[in-house]
Amino acid sequence: MDSKNDLQQMKNLVQQFCEERDWDQFHSPKELAIGISTEAAELLDLFRFKSNEQIAGQFQDPVSRGKIEDELADVLFFILRFSQMNQIDLPAALAAKLAKNNLKYPVESSKGSNKKYNEV
Amino acid sequence: MDSKNDLQQMKNLVQQFCEERDWDQFHSPKELAIGISTEAAELLDLFRFKSNEQIAGQFQDPVSRGKIEDELADVLFFILRFSQMNQIDLPAALAAKLAKNNLKYPVESSKGSNKKYNEV
Amino acid sequence: MDSKNDLQQMKNLVQQFCEERDWDQFHSPKELAIGISTEAAELLDLFRFKSNEQIAGQFQDPVSRGKIEDELADVLFFILRFSQMNQIDLPAALAAKLAKNNLKYPVESSKGSNKKYNEV
Amino acid sequence: MDSKNDLQQMKNLVQQFCEERDWDQFHSPKELAIGISTEAAELLDLFRFKSNEQIAGQFQDPVSRGKIEDELADVLFFILRFSQMNQIDLPAALAAKLAKNNLKYPVESSKGSNKKYNEV
Repeated sequence: MDSKNDLQQMKNLVQQFCEERDWDQFHSPKELAIGISTEAAELLDLFRFKSNEQIAGQFQDPVSRGKIEDELADVLFFILRFSQMNQIDLPAALAAKLAKNNLKYPVESSKGSNKKYNEV
Repeated sequence: MDSKNDLQQMKNLVQQFCEERDWDQFHSPKELAIGISTEAAELLDLFRFKSNEQIAGQFQDPVSRGKIEDELADVLFFILRFSQMNQIDLPAALAAKLAKNNLKYPVESSKGSNKKYNEV
Repeated sequence: MDSKNDLQQMKNLVQQFCEERDWDQFHSPKELAIGISTEAAELLDLFRFKSNEQIAGQFQDPVSRGKIEDELADVLFFILRFSQMNQIDLPAALAAKLAKNNLKYPVESSKGSNKKYNEV
Repeated sequence: MDSKNDLQQMKNLVQQFCEERDWDQFHSPKELAIGISTEAAELLDLFRFKSNEQIAGQFQDPVSRGKIEDELADVLFFILRFSQMNQIDLPAALAAKLAKNNLKYPVESSKGSNKKYNEV
């Protein structure tokens, strides 16, 4: 369960952080998409070449776990900023995409399967 | 303002979607990080080689805007799933990272600047 | 062994392909870096959620193998284009980086290890 | 023009570097694709939020240029390693992909255009 269960509050914090620093000028859609993508790669990089056992250890060690949470927060930061700058309603966007995915991945045929909908 | 201002509700929807399909077995931290990263790249790909004017047009056209929202939702899907599977409190993680960034990017010195904290 | 063992020839083909289409105007360093990054993600996406056995099968199946080779070629395309547009000597850059990595990852201490040089 | 115009020689250097360190065990296709993708993001990260003028300055400054070349070399390292481990003939793969792209992007219709072949 999240401590403060409030998406809008998170968006407000991110917006305030950026506006205090006059960063609107740098935050075009393309730059924010670069931000999401590069931070996502930093998260992935933490697991590069690691076995599942090593990764489990990373989650148990407080310092390593902190790094994982930091990188995840960086991706989230840019997602919230992207949605705020471009007036995207995240819960509505997620619900719409889940509805589409429900058609692409029907429960029966995709149960226990890692196939993509367009894979033979 | 988001339509349903509830992070936990979004996480529950994503969890339900995955559990109905028996996808826990595929959703190790590394695989979910790959999911975040590859979906982030699909979002970025929508803006590749596009001018700011063309991108503004993408946001105005309903079909193109829908594609952008879909890709953003895909990234969010995997972030919510990663946090759910690994018991990460997203608002707490974001607040902790903003506190660190506040030290790395003090308002005075980073105002209107696109320099990274470790740049000369 | 590569069929035509010639890096310069590949760069020339890529340059010709782009110049015939008047694409210099779109190929700034940032856009080409986006190209490298998004194509790299498409390659990675082919292996998402796949087991090692499934991936071995992908390499044995001619159609799947062709998709892998296509995505790898797309990344290489943008690397060659980036180096051509910005006068980067790839063999020299690689040799310089290997020399640095040789210091970061000495044979003795990094033998059989997946630790990064900055990991405790 | 590249200093040592030899793709096979670069592949041999990368192979030797990895085999000396007993790294075959870590270099599955998925892990190498992660390597390509995360290093590509580090290259892109150098240009994040930067204007074209600032990026031109990065190429003129020897230290900044060195960082760009290092990151490009890191991506190339993993591409060469991926092709070596999986017996992919890079010039043949590139030529095959260029032939396909030649059909997707005919010179006449794609001249001076940044549209993707599947864009309306």
